[in-house]
Amino acid sequence: MTAAAALGRHGVTADSSLPMSATIEPATPASHNPVLPSLGFLMADDPSGIREDEVAIDLPGQFDAGVYFIGRIRTPWVRREDCPKNPRESDALCLIEIDSRYAQALAGVETCSHPLYWMDRARRDLVLQVPRHYGERRGTFALRSPARPNPIAASVVTLRAIEGRVLSVVGLDCLDGTPLIDIKPYFASTDSVPDAVVGWHARRRSPV
Amino acid sequence: MTAAAALGRHGVTADSSLPMSATIEPATPASHNPVLPSLGFLMADDPSGIREDEVAIDLPGQFDAGVYFIGRIRTPWVRREDCPKNPRESDALCLIEIDSRYAQALAGVETCSHPLYWMDRARRDLVLQVPRHYGERRGTFALRSPARPNPIAASVVTLRAIEGRVLSVVGLDCLDGTPLIDIKPYFASTDSVPDAVVGWHARRRSPV
Repeated sequence: MTAAAALGRHGVTADSSLPMSATIEPATPASHNPVLPSLGFLMADDPSGIREDEVAIDLPGQFDAGVYFIGRIRTPWVRREDCPKNPRESDALCLIEIDSRYAQALAGVETCSHPLYWMDRARRDLVLQVPRHYGERRGTFALRSPARPNPIAASVVTLRAIEGRVLSVVGLDCLDGTPLIDIKPYFASTDSVPDAVVGWHARRRSPV
Repeated sequence: MTAAAALGRHGVTADSSLPMSATIEPATPASHNPVLPSLGFLMADDPSGIREDEVAIDLPGQFDAGVYFIGRIRTPWVRREDCPKNPRESDALCLIEIDSRYAQALAGVETCSHPLYWMDRARRDLVLQVPRHYGERRGTFALRSPARPNPIAASVVTLRAIEGRVLSVVGLDCLDGTPLIDIKPYFASTDSVPDAVVGWHARRRSPV
């Protein structure tokens, strides 16, 4: 697996005076990715880290919830610049490997699936970004960039086969070794909105 | 805001021998939700906690990454049993309030959006579930149930208005006070698959 799979450890002590809830703190009050705080590693694909006109914020000093990696995604792409720009740009077969702990949860996974994954190489503090292929500045929540406060990506994939705990799928665009955090069924009745329009993108494609 | 907004704290110490990465541990080796470890609170809507034929696993003793809550969702539903079964079942107007820290990231959020949120009242250890409205046992990854290892939900919503940091939307089905973790634009070109079929569900509706 990739370097990202070799995760370290942090000790956590509970505050028993607050039994109803709990918050996790990042290891450092990092302004970048507090889970993988080595900026050199994080920004391997983007040495500058931030482009002109981009805006970063200070992230909170603590997390509000914790995520389990439930498997890994294997793709042909090992450098960010090799990844397809979006999931429909490549028909490469990718593998989703589920940890044995969660194997039973695959019962009934059929046809079209909707995996969520954690983009563990992305910085988390950018609120305004200038994507290379657009060259214009927009808010993070108007973009599908991996750099976001919680670097979670969702794709609709076509399931080609399941063998044991390994799903063969088409329709991913992420780096090899990306951690998996969920798989959901895709219901066309609620998830498909063929006439949805992203205003800024539509204007780019067909300027009025 | 709701009780879930009043989060406690856990101290975290870094292990400097592993500078490249870090892992967060839950407060306890909980088998349920380690972020909100009070089972009484968690299971308020489902006193038994687990139905006959459902299967729970032991969750890992540590988290692999941390999530920031970036805002809150306000809906009309305060009890789980009042929530619509799916996001298309109600046209109630809901509000998405973004924390001021992330306000700039809204620049360019237009038309149709795709919020991700954290279902902080759900248990996380079920791998086989028997949803009440289906009455049949299926794997968690074949279901959209809130109970899942990482209780992240994704909906496609229609954006009706934005005033400052508050988005008015239609198309949510979650509890009032649910923490928001992301907003993405919905691109019909990659996200809409009108002919997607969920095998077990299609067979239920039109038995052959």
